[in-house]
Amino acid sequence: MKDQAIPYKIYLEEAEMPKFWYNVRADMKNKPAPLLNPGTHQPMTAEELSGVFCDELVAQELDNETREYPIPQEIRDFYKMYRPSPLVRAYCLEEKLGTPAKIYYKFEGNNTSGSHKLNSAIAQAYYAKKQGLKGVTTETGAGQWGTALSMACSYFGLDCKVYMVKVSYEQKPFRREVMRVYGASVTPSPSDTTDIGRKILAEHPGTGGSLGCAISEAVEVAVSNPGYRYVLGSVLNQVLLHQSVIGLETKAALDKYGITPDIIIGCAGGGSNLGGLIAPFMGEKLRGEKNYRIIAVEPASCPSFTRGVYAYDFCDTGMVCPLAKMYTLGSDFIPAPNHAGGLRYHGMSPVLSQLYDDGYMEATSVPQTSVFEAAETFARVEGILPAPESSHAIRVAIDEALKCKETGEAKTIVFGLTGTGYFDLVAYEKFHDGKMDDYIPTDAELASYAAKLPKV
Amino acid sequence: MKDQAIPYKIYLEEAEMPKFWYNVRADMKNKPAPLLNPGTHQPMTAEELSGVFCDELVAQELDNETREYPIPQEIRDFYKMYRPSPLVRAYCLEEKLGTPAKIYYKFEGNNTSGSHKLNSAIAQAYYAKKQGLKGVTTETGAGQWGTALSMACSYFGLDCKVYMVKVSYEQKPFRREVMRVYGASVTPSPSDTTDIGRKILAEHPGTGGSLGCAISEAVEVAVSNPGYRYVLGSVLNQVLLHQSVIGLETKAALDKYGITPDIIIGCAGGGSNLGGLIAPFMGEKLRGEKNYRIIAVEPASCPSFTRGVYAYDFCDTGMVCPLAKMYTLGSDFIPAPNHAGGLRYHGMSPVLSQLYDDGYMEATSVPQTSVFEAAETFARVEGILPAPESSHAIRVAIDEALKCKETGEAKTIVFGLTGTGYFDLVAYEKFHDGKMDDYIPTDAELASYAAKLPKV
Repeated sequence: MKDQAIPYKIYLEEAEMPKFWYNVRADMKNKPAPLLNPGTHQPMTAEELSGVFCDELVAQELDNETREYPIPQEIRDFYKMYRPSPLVRAYCLEEKLGTPAKIYYKFEGNNTSGSHKLNSAIAQAYYAKKQGLKGVTTETGAGQWGTALSMACSYFGLDCKVYMVKVSYEQKPFRREVMRVYGASVTPSPSDTTDIGRKILAEHPGTGGSLGCAISEAVEVAVSNPGYRYVLGSVLNQVLLHQSVIGLETKAALDKYGITPDIIIGCAGGGSNLGGLIAPFMGEKLRGEKNYRIIAVEPASCPSFTRGVYAYDFCDTGMVCPLAKMYTLGSDFIPAPNHAGGLRYHGMSPVLSQLYDDGYMEATSVPQTSVFEAAETFARVEGILPAPESSHAIRVAIDEALKCKETGEAKTIVFGLTGTGYFDLVAYEKFHDGKMDDYIPTDAELASYAAKLPKV
Repeated sequence: MKDQAIPYKIYLEEAEMPKFWYNVRADMKNKPAPLLNPGTHQPMTAEELSGVFCDELVAQELDNETREYPIPQEIRDFYKMYRPSPLVRAYCLEEKLGTPAKIYYKFEGNNTSGSHKLNSAIAQAYYAKKQGLKGVTTETGAGQWGTALSMACSYFGLDCKVYMVKVSYEQKPFRREVMRVYGASVTPSPSDTTDIGRKILAEHPGTGGSLGCAISEAVEVAVSNPGYRYVLGSVLNQVLLHQSVIGLETKAALDKYGITPDIIIGCAGGGSNLGGLIAPFMGEKLRGEKNYRIIAVEPASCPSFTRGVYAYDFCDTGMVCPLAKMYTLGSDFIPAPNHAGGLRYHGMSPVLSQLYDDGYMEATSVPQTSVFEAAETFARVEGILPAPESSHAIRVAIDEALKCKETGEAKTIVFGLTGTGYFDLVAYEKFHDGKMDDYIPTDAELASYAAKLPKV
């Protein structure tokens, strides 16, 4: 069955690696809606944003016109340590499924942070260093983003202050420990190191924290300490710009062998991986040069694309950040406690939201037990233990390949394998022990959150 | 400082990957001493060994003459899923150290088992499948070998029964869970599933088990169940043969760029990685074609090469396996409980023992706190969280590079980075919290174990 012309893994040579990030906004007729000041509801200016973010990142955030951004040499040097990531032909999975489909996956997990998050972390750390800053602050939930940022800051000699949701801090000591290897300070949130933290602790003494609270603490520390800025690992336009390196490498590898995908599939939480993976393909689609089927996959327990509304909302539950127009479930929405599979963010990248609203991509949601079934099938034949997040894309790639089996079509399917599951084995254990179920929010629940959206 | 001609990572093309394993014994004038029957002290025959091991593996174990073994296509197909592993130029480490030395490492950790162990696991599973067996049994301590074997058995549809040292089973639930993903049954040892397990439980009801006990249980299950054989992840000649793929790829990658190493460094526990990494280089040295400095690095707390004796000893503490002539600390020897860095085996591969005794390689031992210091230095600049085992080689590579800084010599240093440390974060935490110390066994202690060696 093996197509001898295509190797199992396509690696680019150093000379073939992308030298530019691609800004998909340049090719969008309908640009993503601007961030709004939460007080005035006016578009955020560069000056307003520069108190929170590095200057060059603010410029990238607001720039809807420049098509290509040269990747600075220092970042390209760091990329060389773990990139190019392989584009793998899933021969074994194809054989297991008995499908005529040709399946490829872009594997971003072969670095110590365990995911694609490092692609943007190193860029954000670089610009912070270039601006002469002392350090950066951020929040982390399970710890993937915090780990990536710790590695990036260590490389450039920047201080890194991570606010980690307290319940994760206590339950995931290993993630915390990796961040310590890289010299980051990790503080369980809420903490007594910030005003907002002390306020929340006074009101809810036993709380395990939340992502929204951790964001608020990280932003407070950034704006109140000279020489610090806040950084974020998803959702923002700048993050999608950096993550375009995933799609650019994928496309270069496919082009090298004359392969044109029919379907491109990515998991979607805040959109950092999906936006990066699809970027150059979406560009061709926007310019009318090619037509790809592009599918976003989200958890049934956190269905912002498929069951959310397209509206202005807060990016954080603390409501201190700018308002973004996006598909959202409401900034108070938190997936049910049984949800193990990541992708917990209530909203979605404004860029992807606009593209979805304009009909350039599809979205689907999948229940988590079916995600872990796909993960285990994949692990057994392809030899990689996938992150639960990535396994959402695996699920739909398998489903599409099985449809090809029925129809006899030999479609080419490309999906993003964003990371590894080494730190998610508690979730795998739940799955094996039959303790995982599929809670899906009711319409009434979602309506109650949507009713609280800000009036803009 | 960067030497532009050499990429950060050298990947071989599929067509450049090894098609043969190299059997270093073919080039040894003094062959490794044969395994002896523990009862008769006569060399083990193929027939005796075939009750425990697969037939083809027995043949490989006893074959000191055949220089090259073709790697079966099925194994080469599996290798393609995670091989070639990259040979990485440690530009960032060189710059951090300010050394003129050129440092390369062969990184074997980019697969879900997290180490080089998969190279032999897939070979052993293949021959078991080819022989029509139902399954295999093995022991595992921390779980690295058990994970690799689980993956290999899952690929070929073999049953896999792993006896895991009870204290590890309880303290390392994540390793156990990965094995379950791959469908292995994992039993804490000692268990009530075997005679020897029941005997030990009756004598020591609260015991946490030991590697020796787990081996004995695994062997008992293999020999008493039709269609099962026992497999082992290190020490044996056959394992070194399979692991030669590491060295063959390394040499092919170096040759591609005209690089000749001066120093080759590997960590040494039972010898599977070291023996594989150095194989083709040692072959050239044995044939008088080249002269390399080859250094084995072992923990100061388990110093079989540097402080052991070269004598026949049991391979297991249960004393059910054949006797092997090797550098050994005595089969009762167990490193002190404070030892966190792996490489705990009391003996050493008979092949490597003979080569060391004949003066073809050096050995050195390093205390564990210095190993973790090296690990952290490496992680911060090279972006990979190394396994504690691998970090023994990092320690000595750094030390040799610093010597070059003093002398101004631009030596080329190659070391084996056998795996990742994602499942060793408890040890990293001890290190960060200042709770790690360097217990080194006294001469009197070592003499007391050596006095109990079998009289052969």
